[in-house]
Amino acid sequence: MVNPFEPAKAELVSTPSLVVDVPIVQANLKRLHDYANAHQIHVRPHTKTHKSQLFARMQLDYGASGLTTAKVGEAEVMAQESSDILIAYPVVDPERCRRAAELAKHCTVRVALDSRQGIDALAEYARAIGSTVGVLVDINVGTNRTGVASPRDALALAKRVEQQSPALRLDGIFFYPGHIWNPTQEQVNPLQAIDATLASTIELWGTNGLAAPIVSGGSTPTAYQSHWVRSQTEIRPGTYLFNDMNTARAGFCERSQCAAALVCTVVSNAVPGKAVVDAGTKTLTSDRNVMHPESGHGHVIEYPEAKVVRLSEEHGEIDFKDCESIPRVGERLTIIPNHICPCMNLQQAVYLQSPEGLTTASIDTRGMLT
Amino acid sequence: MVNPFEPAKAELVSTPSLVVDVPIVQANLKRLHDYANAHQIHVRPHTKTHKSQLFARMQLDYGASGLTTAKVGEAEVMAQESSDILIAYPVVDPERCRRAAELAKHCTVRVALDSRQGIDALAEYARAIGSTVGVLVDINVGTNRTGVASPRDALALAKRVEQQSPALRLDGIFFYPGHIWNPTQEQVNPLQAIDATLASTIELWGTNGLAAPIVSGGSTPTAYQSHWVRSQTEIRPGTYLFNDMNTARAGFCERSQCAAALVCTVVSNAVPGKAVVDAGTKTLTSDRNVMHPESGHGHVIEYPEAKVVRLSEEHGEIDFKDCESIPRVGERLTIIPNHICPCMNLQQAVYLQSPEGLTTASIDTRGMLT
Repeated sequence: MVNPFEPAKAELVSTPSLVVDVPIVQANLKRLHDYANAHQIHVRPHTKTHKSQLFARMQLDYGASGLTTAKVGEAEVMAQESSDILIAYPVVDPERCRRAAELAKHCTVRVALDSRQGIDALAEYARAIGSTVGVLVDINVGTNRTGVASPRDALALAKRVEQQSPALRLDGIFFYPGHIWNPTQEQVNPLQAIDATLASTIELWGTNGLAAPIVSGGSTPTAYQSHWVRSQTEIRPGTYLFNDMNTARAGFCERSQCAAALVCTVVSNAVPGKAVVDAGTKTLTSDRNVMHPESGHGHVIEYPEAKVVRLSEEHGEIDFKDCESIPRVGERLTIIPNHICPCMNLQQAVYLQSPEGLTTASIDTRGMLT
Repeated sequence: MVNPFEPAKAELVSTPSLVVDVPIVQANLKRLHDYANAHQIHVRPHTKTHKSQLFARMQLDYGASGLTTAKVGEAEVMAQESSDILIAYPVVDPERCRRAAELAKHCTVRVALDSRQGIDALAEYARAIGSTVGVLVDINVGTNRTGVASPRDALALAKRVEQQSPALRLDGIFFYPGHIWNPTQEQVNPLQAIDATLASTIELWGTNGLAAPIVSGGSTPTAYQSHWVRSQTEIRPGTYLFNDMNTARAGFCERSQCAAALVCTVVSNAVPGKAVVDAGTKTLTSDRNVMHPESGHGHVIEYPEAKVVRLSEEHGEIDFKDCESIPRVGERLTIIPNHICPCMNLQQAVYLQSPEGLTTASIDTRGMLT
């Protein structure tokens, strides 16, 4: 039983603490950039996963071409690390438009939009402030969350963006394949359909005199299949840096490639067959495993047969009936969470474990309002 | 369609923002204390719900006898508001024991314990520091999370606490009826079984020369049924202050008694039949409704027939197919969350709406480590 988090587990004073193993992070970064370099695709990591300037710097050191954020407040902070920021979110309301336009005075700012209202509102603020904001037109490729329905609808918005020049600059196309988990497990790679949609859109734009120099897509589950989408110029994976039980149970990575885990303490084993640790929904979140919702709330490294069956806010109840023993009160366990992104967002700081010892990283953009 | 959050919704600059209506909070406080006073039961609110010194002060102003916390770090902060703190959590590891014992030098500190290891560890630190920590023996009344199994097991721990005097002081019994939602909806009130278990425990302790001056239990769903547990001296509800869709859909309160809601903005309606707001799992959490998990992620006040069908981290997807219209991009909506406690924990600050206008409250003990 190998537990890469053993040194931190022994050394930490307080639990529950999130520990990140730096050598595993470095290997995950290298793996992705080797792939991206081989296929000449830019990597623009989504910083929602770590919300930390320190990890953003590591990503840039490995060759990231810029950074992605969800919130404008995150963009303002991450602009201290990179002069090329994509806000992968519909910036449509006055407060977001004003701040995005203001930030665009100091660095390259792009946003993803799928509405005329958003285009018009953002243009109004950029014009008033005297900046230019880049726009990627968001097209729905099957996730059914945001994005216009068709190449024709994308063309209509692209024309509208062009009309708002120089307040707005038409930079290309945005998509999010969030509905696809492990494309290699399907008979026909679903990224081929996305490839066709994007090709049609680009062709239609071209016949109307509009170019899409940037085609931004990608997610962690689809990252290593990005070459199926031939027009894609950049990918925006987030989780790849750490991985988690979502990516591991989906077959996208090995458990040994999970770089972040929660060190917690057994606080009770009074109820027969189970033990309770000090990590509940306020630490692990209540996110179920996407592909295997029945698998419980994470993976206990020391007891691989155990199952985290129920969480309340500060209690994690673990069923040990398939294990040879139940841990004693006070014993420390290490849990790989289902979904690392919201877990990071719950921490004030995380521990970094490396051969040089234990340090901390602050979660700089945690809990930003807008 | 009455929306008590309308003034804040119009006035707020940024979304998503959590707004608390102060008059509704005051009515909720008065309602509980009227009941508790009529039945001569102390109220020791669980501050996990609000994590804010401001709301703790309101609770104390209405007659709370002390405060409850889950974490030792929360206890250290809440001790600035009350000199009588219960840490309703197994304090068993060195860091928690040391800090709880240290805090007990300055105010009354009690903890709930269900293990010999916990009793011995806490006693060791209290002895070294020279303080006395009060102990409530945790007995499992059916929640099957923590707590010893029987009155006899509770007696064994009570004796062990007594042996650790003066480092520890046996103060009574602790239980948590977290498995009971609306006791009045069942044929036989399940609190009667708890009443019997506690009576047996107290009798057994009595024949062994041990007293239980404090019997601490209660939750928000059982709060107004507390008189069924005749030996109970105090209750520890948390959610009652704000209520949420968990308590509303369980029939424990009216929707008009929900004092906290998220004001959010429609950022997209490009996908037919739905709109997307800027409140996802990093705002609303992924907690499902306890009694009605199929009901979606909260209640949209402006569109009561709408359903918050899917959340990702910063996107809340709302299905409007049962509504007459779909909101426009930029429109603001107000969502009452399923579970208010973890939502508060995600905020840096919340807005307070009162007839005097809009102010803010900081979430002081948000995201405490231990």
